[in-house]
Amino acid sequence: RSYTIAVLPGDGIGLEVTPPALRCLEAAAARFGFALEFRSFDWASCTYYLKHGVMIPDNWKALLQECDAIFFGAVGDPARVPDHISLWGSLLKFRREFDEYINLRPCRLIPGVTCPLAGRAPGSIDFLTVRENTEGEYSSIGGRIFEGTERETVIQNTVFTRVGVDRVLRYAFELARSRPAKKLTSATKSNGISITMPYWDERVAEMAKEYPDVKVEKYHIDILCAHFVQRPHTFDVVVGSNLFGDILSDLGPACTGTIGIAPSANLNPTARKTDAEWMPSLFEPVHGSAPDIAGKGIANPVGMIWAGQMMLEYLGEKDAAALVLSAIENVLGGAKARLQEEGVDVLTPDMGGRGTTESLGNAIENTIRSK
Amino acid sequence: RSYTIAVLPGDGIGLEVTPPALRCLEAAAARFGFALEFRSFDWASCTYYLKHGVMIPDNWKALLQECDAIFFGAVGDPARVPDHISLWGSLLKFRREFDEYINLRPCRLIPGVTCPLAGRAPGSIDFLTVRENTEGEYSSIGGRIFEGTERETVIQNTVFTRVGVDRVLRYAFELARSRPAKKLTSATKSNGISITMPYWDERVAEMAKEYPDVKVEKYHIDILCAHFVQRPHTFDVVVGSNLFGDILSDLGPACTGTIGIAPSANLNPTARKTDAEWMPSLFEPVHGSAPDIAGKGIANPVGMIWAGQMMLEYLGEKDAAALVLSAIENVLGGAKARLQEEGVDVLTPDMGGRGTTESLGNAIENTIRSK
Ligand SMILES: CC(C)[C@H](C(=O)O)[C@@H](O)C(=O)O
Ligand SMILES: CC(C)[C@H](C(=O)O)[C@@H](O)C(=O)O
Repeated sequence: RSYTIAVLPGDGIGLEVTPPALRCLEAAAARFGFALEFRSFDWASCTYYLKHGVMIPDNWKALLQECDAIFFGAVGDPARVPDHISLWGSLLKFRREFDEYINLRPCRLIPGVTCPLAGRAPGSIDFLTVRENTEGEYSSIGGRIFEGTERETVIQNTVFTRVGVDRVLRYAFELARSRPAKKLTSATKSNGISITMPYWDERVAEMAKEYPDVKVEKYHIDILCAHFVQRPHTFDVVVGSNLFGDILSDLGPACTGTIGIAPSANLNPTARKTDAEWMPSLFEPVHGSAPDIAGKGIANPVGMIWAGQMMLEYLGEKDAAALVLSAIENVLGGAKARLQEEGVDVLTPDMGGRGTTESLGNAIENTIRSK
Repeated sequence: RSYTIAVLPGDGIGLEVTPPALRCLEAAAARFGFALEFRSFDWASCTYYLKHGVMIPDNWKALLQECDAIFFGAVGDPARVPDHISLWGSLLKFRREFDEYINLRPCRLIPGVTCPLAGRAPGSIDFLTVRENTEGEYSSIGGRIFEGTERETVIQNTVFTRVGVDRVLRYAFELARSRPAKKLTSATKSNGISITMPYWDERVAEMAKEYPDVKVEKYHIDILCAHFVQRPHTFDVVVGSNLFGDILSDLGPACTGTIGIAPSANLNPTARKTDAEWMPSLFEPVHGSAPDIAGKGIANPVGMIWAGQMMLEYLGEKDAAALVLSAIENVLGGAKARLQEEGVDVLTPDMGGRGTTESLGNAIENTIRSK
């Protein structure tokens, strides 16, 4: 088995966390007897934009479509390139043009990570957020009128389509069904956002009929955010619109202390390589390019490695994916003991250590090789 | 001095928490030599709706405009009346028709309340959320097309006006300026919601020029929610659109453990009784009508009492307001000791006690009378 991976390190710490992540993936591939061909590109970065005036070359689509998946670092350099150029010219463009309609993120309390919530034990929080990733609040239709006057009015449309809503719900229901707890929580705000959100609720209720084995509940986004803090252990699969999913998939990992190391999978789960047009999926860490710490060699590589782990899972390499995840958990969970016993500090500063991108990346890579 | 207060207990536990709150307000008025005339109405409730087919009588506006402020319990009985009827027929209608364009909510870690975050001491979290309360994502413009088909599309407009955005920002900047930390955090999502949110950011940047003494920062709503969990002690005044403010003003109190007891002030801060049309402000607890515990006498009255405290502040009775707040803090902070020393449990079950609405309400009332 062999997979071709488009590697887009992007900007800032994206450039630093990519190499250790690729080494971890190669280590896992070696253990399980498959090959990974990495094709690295310097575009989809602000560096490229500042040189060429565009974020991506003309043939970007063809280049990415030759690959089985896209492994994306982090893009953005707001001091020099406005976000709307860098993001809408790369990440958000890929999501939409490859119709990556699912954004999937795990929310796990893992050993060795300091949880900001009181009294939560590792393993006690373990759920997934499923976010609609192409339409909704990110529709970009709208505009301004009476500009520069007292009457100035700015309008933006939220667009929900039957196709768009149903396919993300379908994915979420199937995912919930596949898990032991079989529970699906839908984020809404139909009491305040009175047109689009009641529609979302209707589609949830309609599809729930097909999944009598799945426990379905809905909460308004305001109180759902509160519940993430109050009782995160009770969630299993949480589904939300583009905006609500965005919020929940940052808040969830924040509640488990993993926001700096969480991964994000942008999936087109129904695409097939045999389709007339192949739509590859994209895997990235949740963190951004972090210009403030870029170049210091101290960026935490776990988010990128974990994103690679989700990519292996997507490629069907379940055993390799399981190995990478357990290597992450072992290294983080064992880091304190190792510091005491061997005097080796593998953790990066964001996790309270004095290690580097390299020390943490190497520790995980070695664990993958030797486990 | 004398104030006329419209009292709308509403539904469910609204009916139970109103009487103790009125007694607390009267106790405070007696101490500081002003009078409160309460006018109680049974409308703005589902009970009224089920009898009369409308949420409010024809002359609702005139009746409320005769009062200096509105004291609102909680409305809603979703098992019998759909939310869009009960909420848009009362609370949301009042907010819009009286142009209560500010929703102000305190977020304080107070003694005696269990904080879900690890290692936070009482007093260490103390900020305010300022929410735009009339436009934005709650605009109710939009609709459906191609209904019942595969092409079904549902659109809702978010509407930001110069007037609407500037006045809430003005209020937030002034509030920040009046506080020792002089810090304002603006919630945005201009990297994803690419038309309305950049406009919001522009108005913030424009007004910031007038307030060089205020430290201004902006965060995207996703990461801001994460920061509420990670470093809530660093916020001072946080301003957001109708939706973002809604989310943050539930999440903030959830982070301090006060979501069940937090108050909410719906303010028209520029209205004057001498205006051609008087626009009264409305004070309510954040909690809802809680049909599941209604009628048991165990609802926590603190949210309603604290809402009354905000009303006293608004009426200009600062000393009375300060007394009520310190009475709440003293009773909650001293409750455990009192249970051990006197065997009296004043806390309601939601706070881990075996007390009742009455025991907790009485304890606060007595503290106000005797302090
Ligand atoms: C009941 C609901 C419509 C309301 C809102 O979203 O405004 C509530 O959540 C609030 O915050 O007062
Ligand atoms: C960078 C930004 C546009 C993006 C989003 O909102 O989708 C990010 O927050 C994410 O969640 O991947």
